[in-house]
Order: sequence, then structure tokens, then C-alpha cells
Amino acid sequence: MDFKSYIRDIPDFPEKGVVFKDITPLLKDAKALQAVTNALMDLVEDQRIDKVVGMESRGFFYAPILASRLNAGFVPVRKDGKLPAQKIREAYSLEYGNDSLEIHEDSILKGEKVLIHDDVLATGGTAAAVCELVERLGGQVVQCVFLLQLDALNGTEKLHGYKVTSLLHY
Amino acid sequence: MDFKSYIRDIPDFPEKGVVFKDITPLLKDAKALQAVTNALMDLVEDQRIDKVVGMESRGFFYAPILASRLNAGFVPVRKDGKLPAQKIREAYSLEYGNDSLEIHEDSILKGEKVLIHDDVLATGGTAAAVCELVERLGGQVVQCVFLLQLDALNGTEKLHGYKVTSLLHY
Repeated sequence: MDFKSYIRDIPDFPEKGVVFKDITPLLKDAKALQAVTNALMDLVEDQRIDKVVGMESRGFFYAPILASRLNAGFVPVRKDGKLPAQKIREAYSLEYGNDSLEIHEDSILKGEKVLIHDDVLATGGTAAAVCELVERLGGQVVQCVFLLQLDALNGTEKLHGYKVTSLLHY
Repeated sequence: MDFKSYIRDIPDFPEKGVVFKDITPLLKDAKALQAVTNALMDLVEDQRIDKVVGMESRGFFYAPILASRLNAGFVPVRKDGKLPAQKIREAYSLEYGNDSLEIHEDSILKGEKVLIHDDVLATGGTAAAVCELVERLGGQVVQCVFLLQLDALNGTEKLHGYKVTSLLHY
């Protein structure tokens, strides 16, 4: 299945000069949803995963499915102020702008094996912040799995030392 | 499994006087994630579903899993300005405040059977707006399935004429 044919470029979104990769045509196609999930599962290391962490909001599309398929729990990392209980925070810079991310303190136990998922690996700032959050809670980042990677932005540099795998490269 | 024991009350979130139902302990528990998904699947009408529509952001947790299990496509309904392509919009009022929701114009085809999912049915304003969006695109709302329903807020009244099913009632 040619996944890239289901992903469309949206010029100047969310701001002028950025070409946004819209994955909603991939999500809305029932066969593509299954095929992508299977392909992402094939990329996941063959070991126990306790928690799958997904980033708000587009990381929430595939991460819960992966958690369900891996018999793991699902943990959302959210933007500032969205999580209601005790949490920790990391600031980060991203392709266009700055932001901060939060995770519930009780979401990951010491020593748990964690898979991190987001839709896109761009500069790696978001994913690096999530790795940091997971490790501050005592979790072990087993792997970061992305749907697509923008190779020119060198996101893997910020994730040096982590196993990084992306299904699609641009 | 006593699902309610995994849901915690957060007083005065997101604003004073509101008691927020935090479902993240339910999501992070691997066994509970499977059990909730199975229980939600048991609630779904035994007929073909073409698309599962989930609402930003907490509707994104279970809706993609349901879509995957039902061999359907997944369609996100998002808040103002988040979807990048051609879209339609509905304004709505919710338990605390006002907002508007958008859906991509090409996300649902005429005559497709649609399951709507969100985490919480409160006043029903959000879900009614989503039903309206789906029908404006020519979709047929087969059922609205919620994780939990706040009975005192009478959300089913705004959804009169639709099949509404909730796993947990408060």
C-alpha cells in the first residue's frame, strides 16, 4: 500500500512558509488504518512494552491503537494546563514556535518500558522533551516510533542515544 | 472490572465549581484499556460502520481503537483552526463555555454509516454539533457511544432521535 499517496501537502499551514503533512486521508481510509497500524507494529522492537506515550493531539491517533495491540497502557502527554492531576513539565522548541508539555506524575512507574509515538518527527524538540519527561518519572524509553520523518530537519540528532524508527521518510 | 475505581474526580477543573472526571488512570492500565475497549465494542450496534468520528482531544483516545476494531476509518473532529484542509464548522455551547468544531469536507461520503465517540456526554452540546456536521456531509449517524455520561445534565435530550449509549453513568 502506497501510504504516501494518502498524505497530502497543505502549503502555509499552520503558518506561512510551512508545508504541513495532512495525515487525515490516511486515517479515514479503513484499509489504510489497518495497514499503517500493522506496519507500525512491525517496526516495534520485540520486547515487553508497559506504556505507550502519545503526544497531543496527532500523536493520539495511532498511539492508543498501538497500546491496545501491545497490551500496554496508554499515557497522553499534553500541552500546558490540559492535564488535571499532579504533573511535571518540560519546555521545548518546535519547528514553528515554542511550547511546553506535561505528563501526569503517576502515569509511569520506575523501570517501566516505554514506547513513544508521534505522527511526525520534525526537529525532534517535542520528542526529546517527552523522553525527558518519561525519564524524570523513572521510565525507560525503549523506542520512539513515528509515522513520518522530515529528514532535512535532522530530528534524530536531538534524539541521539534513543532508538528512532519512522515508517515514512520525506 | 470496576471501571469507576479507575476514574478520579478532580474538583475545580478546568474551572471553579466543575468536578472533572479524569480518565487517565483508566487509560494507563493495560488491562483496563483492553477491558474498556471490549466493553465499548459490546455496546456498538451489530451493523456495518464506515467511519468512527472522535472529538478533540479526549475523544481521540478510544475512537481510533474502535475504528481499528470495527474495520472502519477514523475521522477527527477538531476545534477551530486545527484542521488544515477544506472543512465545515458548527458552533456549540458546552458545560463550561462556548466553542466551535470543524470536520474535513472530504472525511465522510454521502450515505456512510457513522459511529460517534467522545469520552464524556455532559450537556450534549458537543455531540449534537458533531451529529450536525456528519449529517451536513451526508453521513448517517448510526450511534453515539460515550465512555461516561453525567446523567444530571440531560445530554440525551439534545441528542433526541439518535441512539445514545454510555458505558458508565454518574
